[in-house]
Amino acid sequence: MNLAGREAASEGPARGRPRSEAVERAIVEGVMKLLEDGVPLAELSIERIARTAGVGKATIYRRWPGKEELFVDVVRQAEPADPALPGTSMRDDLVAVLEQLRERGLMSRSSVLLHNVFAQMKSSPKVWKAYHTSVVDPRRRLQYEILRRGQATGELRSDVDIDVLSDCFVGPMLLRTVMRPDAELPEGLSEQIVDTLLSGLRPVSSPSA
Amino acid sequence: MNLAGREAASEGPARGRPRSEAVERAIVEGVMKLLEDGVPLAELSIERIARTAGVGKATIYRRWPGKEELFVDVVRQAEPADPALPGTSMRDDLVAVLEQLRERGLMSRSSVLLHNVFAQMKSSPKVWKAYHTSVVDPRRRLQYEILRRGQATGELRSDVDIDVLSDCFVGPMLLRTVMRPDAELPEGLSEQIVDTLLSGLRPVSSPSA
Repeated sequence: MNLAGREAASEGPARGRPRSEAVERAIVEGVMKLLEDGVPLAELSIERIARTAGVGKATIYRRWPGKEELFVDVVRQAEPADPALPGTSMRDDLVAVLEQLRERGLMSRSSVLLHNVFAQMKSSPKVWKAYHTSVVDPRRRLQYEILRRGQATGELRSDVDIDVLSDCFVGPMLLRTVMRPDAELPEGLSEQIVDTLLSGLRPVSSPSA
Repeated sequence: MNLAGREAASEGPARGRPRSEAVERAIVEGVMKLLEDGVPLAELSIERIARTAGVGKATIYRRWPGKEELFVDVVRQAEPADPALPGTSMRDDLVAVLEQLRERGLMSRSSVLLHNVFAQMKSSPKVWKAYHTSVVDPRRRLQYEILRRGQATGELRSDVDIDVLSDCFVGPMLLRTVMRPDAELPEGLSEQIVDTLLSGLRPVSSPSA
């Protein structure tokens, strides 16, 4: 890590990606190390991060406008990767989206680090906003895209606001992962939620259906 | 307030409810006043509350085991009242449950006090736990009851875990009120969510239905 950091001092803009990526990795891992050591977000200064990663402060500022954006990148790399959408149907794509949320929930339960990182993030409005802009909003736009494709192929009703439809699919999973830390997150839950919502919560051959 | 508090000093156990209720109100309003003045939860000592309400510390401890439980009672009184269930159908009862969540969301957006109170509550694990035990858990048990009645009357499918069904109904509303502070909470949203979920998210005459 420190080696990569020191090399970066002589790095020019024309040197290409690999070296630059090594520097970024050193910085991100420096932040993770500090967090693992229990340093709270409020005490994570750019100076301290630079010292830990063995790079100059300018090297960090060339890549991130401030510690909020850097911290969000760290969180993003600690989270499960964005899902690869199978593209076979809206149903399958939605299951993939919910699976990522489920994995994220399982990870934040098993990793004290990630759990603390989320908690700290929420207590800082600036970081929370940066996280939304760079992680949550794109995720939401992806959900909208999937649902619009579903409306186009006739898999999803189009008489209800897409924003409400999106909340119907992700709301139950987010309720379990974020707001109900004791709720079970078993395998098959994503499929169960998506399929139950698609066919409706009335009994299949209900008199009132 | 102070008058009610001072009277309480001479209050005996046989004096009946009205005076006791006045004392409780004085204490709860004392806490609200301190919160409105911007005193953070961590600095809300029983001593300070007693001084503000004009009662002795013992008067508070006779009613609440600690400041966590008192604080939760204050939050409960600041929130919209539990819904009166119409009892006409599971659908109508669920709409009433979601309406309370929607009102609570609207209130926490318009009231800076309530917004701060929720934020502070989440940052204290002890208060958060007390709030769950005395507010969230009973609310959840009520949802289960409504859903079980719906299964009994044939309004709700019974091939899916009641816990998952419950999250399907309240998840979308909680996502909007708690996790998406910018999301709209228009009139009619509760009805729209419940009815959409009951009939299913597939188009009504979908080829894949």
